[in-house]
Amino acid sequence: LTVLAGGVGAAKFLRGLIRCIDPAKITVIVNTADDDTFFGLAVSPDLDTITYTLADVAHRRQGWGLDGDRFHCLEALKRFYPDGGWFRLGDADLATHVYRTDRLSAGARLSTVTAEITRAFGVDSTILPMTDYTVRSIVITDRGKMSFQEYLVKHRARPKVEKITLKGITGVQAAPGVLRALREAELVVIAPSNPILSIQPILAVEGVKETLIKRDGWTVAISPLVGGRAVSGPLVKLLDDVRHYPPKALSIAQFYYPFLRAMVIDRRDWARDADEIDSHQIMPIASDLVFSTAEKAAAAARTMLRALDVR
Amino acid sequence: LTVLAGGVGAAKFLRGLIRCIDPAKITVIVNTADDDTFFGLAVSPDLDTITYTLADVAHRRQGWGLDGDRFHCLEALKRFYPDGGWFRLGDADLATHVYRTDRLSAGARLSTVTAEITRAFGVDSTILPMTDYTVRSIVITDRGKMSFQEYLVKHRARPKVEKITLKGITGVQAAPGVLRALREAELVVIAPSNPILSIQPILAVEGVKETLIKRDGWTVAISPLVGGRAVSGPLVKLLDDVRHYPPKALSIAQFYYPFLRAMVIDRRDWARDADEIDSHQIMPIASDLVFSTAEKAAAAARTMLRALDVR
Repeated sequence: LTVLAGGVGAAKFLRGLIRCIDPAKITVIVNTADDDTFFGLAVSPDLDTITYTLADVAHRRQGWGLDGDRFHCLEALKRFYPDGGWFRLGDADLATHVYRTDRLSAGARLSTVTAEITRAFGVDSTILPMTDYTVRSIVITDRGKMSFQEYLVKHRARPKVEKITLKGITGVQAAPGVLRALREAELVVIAPSNPILSIQPILAVEGVKETLIKRDGWTVAISPLVGGRAVSGPLVKLLDDVRHYPPKALSIAQFYYPFLRAMVIDRRDWARDADEIDSHQIMPIASDLVFSTAEKAAAAARTMLRALDVR
Repeated sequence: LTVLAGGVGAAKFLRGLIRCIDPAKITVIVNTADDDTFFGLAVSPDLDTITYTLADVAHRRQGWGLDGDRFHCLEALKRFYPDGGWFRLGDADLATHVYRTDRLSAGARLSTVTAEITRAFGVDSTILPMTDYTVRSIVITDRGKMSFQEYLVKHRARPKVEKITLKGITGVQAAPGVLRALREAELVVIAPSNPILSIQPILAVEGVKETLIKRDGWTVAISPLVGGRAVSGPLVKLLDDVRHYPPKALSIAQFYYPFLRAMVIDRRDWARDADEIDSHQIMPIASDLVFSTAEKAAAAARTMLRALDVR
């Protein structure tokens, strides 16, 4: 079973999925287009959110960062970076970035380093960056061009987005294992992540979309919308800004159209969305998609697996 | 006034000196041969000890590191570096190393970065690394070859030292401002540091010894010995291991012989050492050299300045 994942939304789903399926049988392919460099340190927010969540050490309430982490180093960094500190890196979290930076400087590939980090955290699933190369989401807004983290965290997703481009994406190779994990999986799940910011970059990596189109098994997406609102992040605003899409299941499905065969939508959206999805030859599956607890996410995962007859 | 300095011993003296002389008139040339890389971060222990002490933020008891610092990041780093963590880098201290590493990776010189760091800490004195290039003390012991920090911190200076070599020293240029600070100073003070580990590397930098020999003003050393023991560090053991020198003032003076014109020795050593020093055309100055408080260091600095008629 292979999952395409962004950050917090995907992590919350995965926290449930590993209660239904042996974690060792799960491969997660993670977006790295929102990676960034802070204080010279290589930060991979989505990879870390997934890793910390699967290791059960993530911060419960906020979803990212480490539970119980402090910010002494960040406070001290502000002495040197008066404009820094808006990206909240905790003391223990920083250790991950220091290690990643150290290894990358020594010439190691991001996928190798990611395997080392997940192993150090005792994660049994395989977590793969979409690519070992540097791809960056550049957000073009009414307040200028900015990195994704500047848009999301520094400016709290307030600027109006005109366009999102992927710097470095042209012809970029998938990380080792990515295409095989897509080809050989019985089921590919697109996590309830932002299709524009988190999943599109993965699909833009050389060979990913082609492999998804060619494969025989199911590809299912979990809708990141509940009752016309995003479970987390600026999805609704972005759908409108960038595509003028309304906040409904079909708007999400359209990003995955050529290979999507099923979609889990929230019960609250069923009446409005199910028939429309179905009319596009995508099987709708109803579930509760507010993953406030791991058990709720597990229930949705179980519903999905049962509907698709995967065990 | 220019001071040649190592780490903790020098810092304790400087803490007193800045109470007698306008800190802005003091240039400190600091040993960088015990710099090292931990977790991929560029650590300059002597530069930082001097900076933190002059900024009055150093850890009171231990002399190095920042007062009140915690070790959450270091604890988390052990997850990735099972053999690491013996070099105690605090959370706030790490910020300095992260910044230094970031700037050096961007191509900045160590002297530039050091100026930025001292400015950020509000230090009024000029702190210069001896060189912008990488020089490393390699300690050859009965337990093998090791870096200086491995010898001092990891192995607690226990191995028997056969030899100390300076990797990268050949023809290495002094950092900008170093030779001028030596040439133009009214007084050059060699801080009570380890002559073998801390001062010899500075003297080995191209032009330093020559400039000291040629200059007209006083050059004075503060003895790092009190009653035949080192104020801090493995000095006595090293003098014996490396040179078979006894722990007395003349053994220190011999490292500085061609340019040393005065030496401050502890009152406890006066009866034994003063005449011997004097017979080598080095003016002995008596003071109390246990710098347990800044006021005691200031008293010694005042005694020295008065004896040399420097104000």
